[in-house]
Amino acid sequence: MKQSKSISKAVISRLPKYYRCLRELLNQNIERVSSEELSAIMKTTASQVRQDLNHFGGFGQQGYGYNVENLYNEIGKILGVEKPHKLILIGAGNLGRALFKFQNFRENGFIFCNIFDADPKLQGKSVNGIPISDVKTLPQYLADNDIDIAVICVPTEAARSIAMDVYDLGIRNFINFAHTDLKLPDDAIVKNIHILDSMLELSYSISTKKNEDLK
Amino acid sequence: MKQSKSISKAVISRLPKYYRCLRELLNQNIERVSSEELSAIMKTTASQVRQDLNHFGGFGQQGYGYNVENLYNEIGKILGVEKPHKLILIGAGNLGRALFKFQNFRENGFIFCNIFDADPKLQGKSVNGIPISDVKTLPQYLADNDIDIAVICVPTEAARSIAMDVYDLGIRNFINFAHTDLKLPDDAIVKNIHILDSMLELSYSISTKKNEDLK
Repeated sequence: MKQSKSISKAVISRLPKYYRCLRELLNQNIERVSSEELSAIMKTTASQVRQDLNHFGGFGQQGYGYNVENLYNEIGKILGVEKPHKLILIGAGNLGRALFKFQNFRENGFIFCNIFDADPKLQGKSVNGIPISDVKTLPQYLADNDIDIAVICVPTEAARSIAMDVYDLGIRNFINFAHTDLKLPDDAIVKNIHILDSMLELSYSISTKKNEDLK
Repeated sequence: MKQSKSISKAVISRLPKYYRCLRELLNQNIERVSSEELSAIMKTTASQVRQDLNHFGGFGQQGYGYNVENLYNEIGKILGVEKPHKLILIGAGNLGRALFKFQNFRENGFIFCNIFDADPKLQGKSVNGIPISDVKTLPQYLADNDIDIAVICVPTEAARSIAMDVYDLGIRNFINFAHTDLKLPDDAIVKNIHILDSMLELSYSISTKKNEDLK
């Protein structure tokens, strides 16, 4: 597969959405889709769709459009989901436990292998059949197991220090749900999911709209 | 407060992060901050910080920098969090219940007032002292109560239809956690939190890095 070197962040951030929309088409047993139809679903233009997919060699055919399953699989390959990812979850609070139980992750190749917490009251309790482990056992666990991604789901004040510990134990890929930015060396890849930030952006849109309505 | 009209999405998307970083400085009892210091925390440049904050009239003083509390409060005003927002949650699954219990929302003025689910097995059970209501009671509830935001936390296949129902009942502001995009009229404001999309973006970064390492 041809892959051009300078793919912009914007294109990459749209790939999961293509993947999701194509999955929905597949679920509806739709076999082929034109760039016009795909752009309507993606809420963008047909030329944008063609441009985006051309970055990855382009999978469309003039007059036919795209084969949905083929395009879905190709984008899956680009997204690197052909091989499952092994995850650990740090922080067995309400949100952490909910994520751990999330069926959708497993179906998309994100497999939670273990869950850790510093709170002795939580340790030993089971989530989805897996007992919560003491964070102190992390060094041994990570020495014995090949883990790709750590999901950080601990309170703000604990996040940076535990993430640094996990980094020092060799993990380089992080999903961070804590309401702070991690401070990790440059070779760490961190994807932040700041739920409250999104709420605040919505709040901004609401108040801006309100001000405009008052005009 | 002076507010210029054409503020880019990029600036707005940084505001919650400013707000979060300033909160952290406040928690450390730091009274003032220079644009250089703030840019180091924000992982951007001092000129970007000055430019960003100038959009909103600028709150800094030459040689002094910014008063942390003042700037925090001003950004809070811009984000529209002076007055609390009233929320309902639709979908009392694992993730929904976790969000409902999330202390950080309340502290930032996002108040969950009620929780609804279509599943009779969940109805009547309590989350944070509030019993889960039947979604069928939504019309009456929304007629009787002034609600600002609906948080959609239902399975993919149910999300569009329930969101449309809630829209028809008068709600215009949505946070969507379902793994699909809602289809709502243009006057709806929707903020999507697609957790799996973020995971897929991370997966892309991991596989791209792996390919580069192999070169």
